[in-house]
Amino acid sequence: MDDSETGTSAPTDHGGLTVLSLDECNQLLGSQDIGRIAFITAGEPLILPVNYRMHDGHIVFRTTTGEKLDAARNAASVGFEIDDWNSEDQSGWSVIVSGTAQDVEDPDEIAKLRQLGLRAWADVVVRNNWVRIIPNEISGRRI
Amino acid sequence: MDDSETGTSAPTDHGGLTVLSLDECNQLLGSQDIGRIAFITAGEPLILPVNYRMHDGHIVFRTTTGEKLDAARNAASVGFEIDDWNSEDQSGWSVIVSGTAQDVEDPDEIAKLRQLGLRAWADVVVRNNWVRIIPNEISGRRI
Repeated sequence: MDDSETGTSAPTDHGGLTVLSLDECNQLLGSQDIGRIAFITAGEPLILPVNYRMHDGHIVFRTTTGEKLDAARNAASVGFEIDDWNSEDQSGWSVIVSGTAQDVEDPDEIAKLRQLGLRAWADVVVRNNWVRIIPNEISGRRI
Repeated sequence: MDDSETGTSAPTDHGGLTVLSLDECNQLLGSQDIGRIAFITAGEPLILPVNYRMHDGHIVFRTTTGEKLDAARNAASVGFEIDDWNSEDQSGWSVIVSGTAQDVEDPDEIAKLRQLGLRAWADVVVRNNWVRIIPNEISGRRI
């Protein structure tokens, strides 16, 4: 049912973009494989792509000791983003998340996460550590 | 010419990913429309997608006073990222940039930027401010 049928308009933000509902955001978060995490390292914000899954409302991914992403494990606050764009009709959407990153340490939980089918594409080196992002705020926009 | 022809191997990082050369990174930066900027706002890292162009080695985009992205204009340090992924063959690449964001204030430069064909997809509200990111560090990975 589009806006013309309901007679309602979706809310828009300052920039004139359509604001997605939390349900839409969660649905999109569950539909993607690759997202981007931002965290502060040495005082500077860094973005890295991660292969992720949603689990119990958390964003989960794996990382290896020693790589840059390792810094995200102890980050007080992280940002996370997914998006998809179509150049031809200039449409697209993005969902952004603010949250807290934590190591997953409980062996039972790690056993569950292993069954999510989260294949790290770059799995040349075994990725040992599971990290969860606990969302504090989720928002989305559509063009 | 691939590695088997040259007899050399592309360098890999901690995670076993192929490291892209600076030339490859710059070529990829010049080939995309949508990137993601990360900046620190209220002490937290935030990622937002932006429609951008490269100009004189800088990443340039437009923003509107009042929206979240406005905070990036005065950010000491920002992160920037582009990527592309193919789920079918699980291939992909990403380029990440660390840099400094600055307002573009010179009218002559703004006139040049206006000719870049940078159509903000979300141009419902006129986007008034031009921002450049001056890269300090550029790196890329391929899976």
